[in-house]
Amino acid sequence: MKVLKDKILIEGKVLSDTVLKVDSFLNHQIDPAFAMDLGKEVAARFKNQSITKILTVEASGIAVAMATGLALDIPVVFAKKKRAATADPNVFSSTVYSFTKDESVDIYVNSRFLHPSDNVLLVDDFLAQGEALRGMVEIVQQSGASLAGAGIIIEKVFQGGGKALRDAGIRIETLAPIASLAGGKITFC
Amino acid sequence: MKVLKDKILIEGKVLSDTVLKVDSFLNHQIDPAFAMDLGKEVAARFKNQSITKILTVEASGIAVAMATGLALDIPVVFAKKKRAATADPNVFSSTVYSFTKDESVDIYVNSRFLHPSDNVLLVDDFLAQGEALRGMVEIVQQSGASLAGAGIIIEKVFQGGGKALRDAGIRIETLAPIASLAGGKITFC
Repeated sequence: MKVLKDKILIEGKVLSDTVLKVDSFLNHQIDPAFAMDLGKEVAARFKNQSITKILTVEASGIAVAMATGLALDIPVVFAKKKRAATADPNVFSSTVYSFTKDESVDIYVNSRFLHPSDNVLLVDDFLAQGEALRGMVEIVQQSGASLAGAGIIIEKVFQGGGKALRDAGIRIETLAPIASLAGGKITFC
Repeated sequence: MKVLKDKILIEGKVLSDTVLKVDSFLNHQIDPAFAMDLGKEVAARFKNQSITKILTVEASGIAVAMATGLALDIPVVFAKKKRAATADPNVFSSTVYSFTKDESVDIYVNSRFLHPSDNVLLVDDFLAQGEALRGMVEIVQQSGASLAGAGIIIEKVFQGGGKALRDAGIRIETLAPIASLAGGKITFC
């Protein structure tokens, strides 16, 4: 998606060979109209797939997931991190390791929101090692729902998470796949 | 906002005299079209106020904040919880106590995203004791930006957070103000 790649080149900051910050429009400050365009593009790549539900994980996936849900006119569920005091005991869950934060967190979805009759599209802002996506796949499997695939805004392809999940048979569509951040230079695939 | 109150009466679950769950459409599963309507209503209450930025806090405020930002055509910033390994040291921050989770968390905003020239509208899904809102007010004050007020979807008025903040001179608009949850019954103001 050219307009996204252009925006990444202009506003993105390469902090290391593995860390790209796009917090000016995607995951700290959000450009709402631009997020809507991203959601429309993800939706377009999965049109006619009879998706019934979007699943993302809090917090930075929510904006693009909501935009995609709006484009497809279906509900959005965001997996929560940890278990809140008010949460039901009846949840689907998975443990996810964050390399950025160097910590493991439990993510969970109340079982009322995913059903065997659902056809789920996963949406997230980033795909790197693939831990969050793997956790969401596990939650979908626990629910008995079908998995239509995943729509990702930025994939750091060189970190291998996408390959492992595609090898496992999961369809992943990425709007901006990045081949390398070496030497501070953003190189798209 | 009648359509919101009706939805709360139909889908809300009163778990105790202080806890109302609306996770089927607001803060776990999201109805995107309905969230857009909520955002439009918040935007309408602050039109002609020259708002330049929306501030919310992750995670459950993001959907309605994005809807409000879209309606006003301005950027949305969400305060993050804790400090991520990739965050800049240069942030505005506040410590917020969550009664629901019985824990304190630091919330922060990168100083690049709030300026003295900004006129900020706070948006959140819930207002109870007012801790999250108070933390956001503190962050706006640190930035030197003007505070236009706060748009809240559901306020549990009986918990007093809104009164304290209004007494401090902050304009708060609530779409569904709740007077009481006593005896499992939802009573609006």
